Amino acid sequence: MSDPSPIITLTTDFGIRDTYVGVMKGVILGINPNAQVVDLTHAVPPQDIYEAAFSIYAAHSYFPKGTIHVIVVDPGVGSTRRAIACQTDNAFFVCPDNGVLSSLLQSTGDEAPQPMNAVEIQNKAYYLPEVSNTFHGRDIFAPVAAHLSLGVPLEDIGAPVQTLVQLPIQVPQLSGNTLTGQIVKIDRFGNAITNISESAIAGLESASTGEISAYEIRIGSVRLNRFNRAYAESGVGKPLAIIGSSGVLEIAVNGGSAEKQLGLKREDVIVIRKIGRSCQKI
Amino acid sequence: MSDPSPIITLTTDFGIRDTYVGVMKGVILGINPNAQVVDLTHAVPPQDIYEAAFSIYAAHSYFPKGTIHVIVVDPGVGSTRRAIACQTDNAFFVCPDNGVLSSLLQSTGDEAPQPMNAVEIQNKAYYLPEVSNTFHGRDIFAPVAAHLSLGVPLEDIGAPVQTLVQLPIQVPQLSGNTLTGQIVKIDRFGNAITNISESAIAGLESASTGEISAYEIRIGSVRLNRFNRAYAESGVGKPLAIIGSSGVLEIAVNGGSAEKQLGLKREDVIVIRKIGRSCQKI
Amino acid sequence: MSDPSPIITLTTDFGIRDTYVGVMKGVILGINPNAQVVDLTHAVPPQDIYEAAFSIYAAHSYFPKGTIHVIVVDPGVGSTRRAIACQTDNAFFVCPDNGVLSSLLQSTGDEAPQPMNAVEIQNKAYYLPEVSNTFHGRDIFAPVAAHLSLGVPLEDIGAPVQTLVQLPIQVPQLSGNTLTGQIVKIDRFGNAITNISESAIAGLESASTGEISAYEIRIGSVRLNRFNRAYAESGVGKPLAIIGSSGVLEIAVNGGSAEKQLGLKREDVIVIRKIGRSCQKI
Repeated sequence: MSDPSPIITLTTDFGIRDTYVGVMKGVILGINPNAQVVDLTHAVPPQDIYEAAFSIYAAHSYFPKGTIHVIVVDPGVGSTRRAIACQTDNAFFVCPDNGVLSSLLQSTGDEAPQPMNAVEIQNKAYYLPEVSNTFHGRDIFAPVAAHLSLGVPLEDIGAPVQTLVQLPIQVPQLSGNTLTGQIVKIDRFGNAITNISESAIAGLESASTGEISAYEIRIGSVRLNRFNRAYAESGVGKPLAIIGSSGVLEIAVNGGSAEKQLGLKREDVIVIRKIGRSCQKI
Repeated sequence: MSDPSPIITLTTDFGIRDTYVGVMKGVILGINPNAQVVDLTHAVPPQDIYEAAFSIYAAHSYFPKGTIHVIVVDPGVGSTRRAIACQTDNAFFVCPDNGVLSSLLQSTGDEAPQPMNAVEIQNKAYYLPEVSNTFHGRDIFAPVAAHLSLGVPLEDIGAPVQTLVQLPIQVPQLSGNTLTGQIVKIDRFGNAITNISESAIAGLESASTGEISAYEIRIGSVRLNRFNRAYAESGVGKPLAIIGSSGVLEIAVNGGSAEKQLGLKREDVIVIRKIGRSCQKI
Repeated sequence: MSDPSPIITLTTDFGIRDTYVGVMKGVILGINPNAQVVDLTHAVPPQDIYEAAFSIYAAHSYFPKGTIHVIVVDPGVGSTRRAIACQTDNAFFVCPDNGVLSSLLQSTGDEAPQPMNAVEIQNKAYYLPEVSNTFHGRDIFAPVAAHLSLGVPLEDIGAPVQTLVQLPIQVPQLSGNTLTGQIVKIDRFGNAITNISESAIAGLESASTGEISAYEIRIGSVRLNRFNRAYAESGVGKPLAIIGSSGVLEIAVNGGSAEKQLGLKREDVIVIRKIGRSCQKI
């Protein structure tokens, strides 16, 4: 890579209370002083591989070509789980082989997943000299990412891996006029982000032949019958459905928290029905 | 701008739990790989425009000339509120036109506000190709800031705006020997930062002709009668009044939290009286 | 220093709710636009000098030679406590002289402390023009660090200091087959990090002449009798003892929080006994 300032992103469950993240940056800059390290998030709930998988999936496409993404949510650190480095046409991913790339590898959105070359991280020349049993983020993942940013080719890192560990990623179920999905993440504003994409909604059939169609959106005890274009289209404190910034349906409350006010949480089921209304009845 | 590493600061209410902030940095670095992105704060309470206005006002003057400040506290995202880019002699500001620049535009401190040129952000050439309804921080504000950092002139961003939205910023009321202000922010240490500047206190008249003057500072049930030079001048656990680092009066507790121990909160009223004491009574 | 991108790390108790940290970065970049500022942690508990001392001690060796570490945990700001700048063969430290370097200066680990030259910060040419009474991080420590990163020699900062303030750092007590230490930090995962190094454990004598030795590890009501190589070696939810990433013993719970499940907190005592077992009885 000839980019003078390659970007390395960090996605971890380390929090920012301790010095773990800062130390990873020290290791990276010690190997490549020109790297630009960007925090994606360090607030993945401890050992929550699903949320890490969603986070890197939703965020990676906003970074320039060649960005190296390090993901360290690693309950199996020190065990026999593999460490991997992967490459697509656009990016690198350096992480444990525990499913954190599942959302990238499975077709959860409108775009097909990108082909990915993967190797097992094996070449100790790219580790820190001493490797602990509990902090491979510092001792293996950070230095390997830094070496990749210097142009070390993937095949120098280790031998190819054909099959990566994958978690089952929930995809919405379409059945005629009904689409059943679930909440995959609650964000800081209390918005409930679902796995239902705009195009999945477009694929719903109308339940009748009427020309005017309407929607019924059910989640918990809430019933909504339209999609907002902006939070502010609903009254303050009112729940609403909107296609959010990730291109998927979100349930929000204008000026408030859908999580708190509606009692929503991850994995809650959401059902959308398209209802045709015959408009010329008398 | 010919600066090789222009600084772009970010002030948002996004928190750091999600990847929203990291994604904005990816967008910026994709447009200008040499930008230096600095987090001012992402902990503005959700949709709290007043606190955002205070934060950028108190912080901006410590950044070098040419710094670009992006402020995204944006309850009206997706509605008809304008997006603006502004320029003073020293800095740029890129934000929704919802009052987040109010403290900068009004004379709340000792210095007069700086003249500001503003344009409405309209030129889609400087947006991301796809613009969501809910995340203009990523799709509009970040890319516009990155283009400004590459030297794009303000007039290319959009047409001039004459009048910006302003919130009423509370200024202290001076009446003879009494100054009445309020708490504008509680900081992480529980210090209560007021809107009363050192020069406003200097402007108080003495209530008598006595040569030695004293002060009475009242806030809630607390009575203080002097200004400290250092936190450590008061006993541990004792409340104190001090001119803080922003040049305004703070109420603090040495080694503790004024917020918790004194029950203080934003908008609480503080009253300072200058009391002359005739010193030759017998 | 001729390094084009010198690293300046920040360790503070400022939190990230306010703009204090961002402002320090603005000051640094205004003096040296090429500095790379890395957050070590801003979550030191307010005014907790012990935790700051442990944090910088545990983290500093992972940064490249020449890194400048700024530590601002400073309950005595504005009082007569000294401000210091220090240099070892590998790094600089800029901080109040209040004990935050204690762990570096005392031999708490396996390596001897590095010789350190220290000066009192006195040369106002390297301060901000105006110095507040409450925020020397911004007005003194950040600008001095930035000037050091430009190559200003230590002796220009102020006069040499022979003796630095030191806090008593607890070292484990070894007595025959028993080692008594304590918890020095709880991390974000609820892991309890002790002051007992791997080599201290190796120094334990066996209580008998039996060839097979075992350990008894006591902390609170927990009894463990082996050291794990990985968290995942214990059942989920089970407590375990492991040499952690700092080279010292940690008490953890696989997939959980030792802090919460075992009720551990800083300064709790931990006792390790080596018990010989005669293995040829009968």
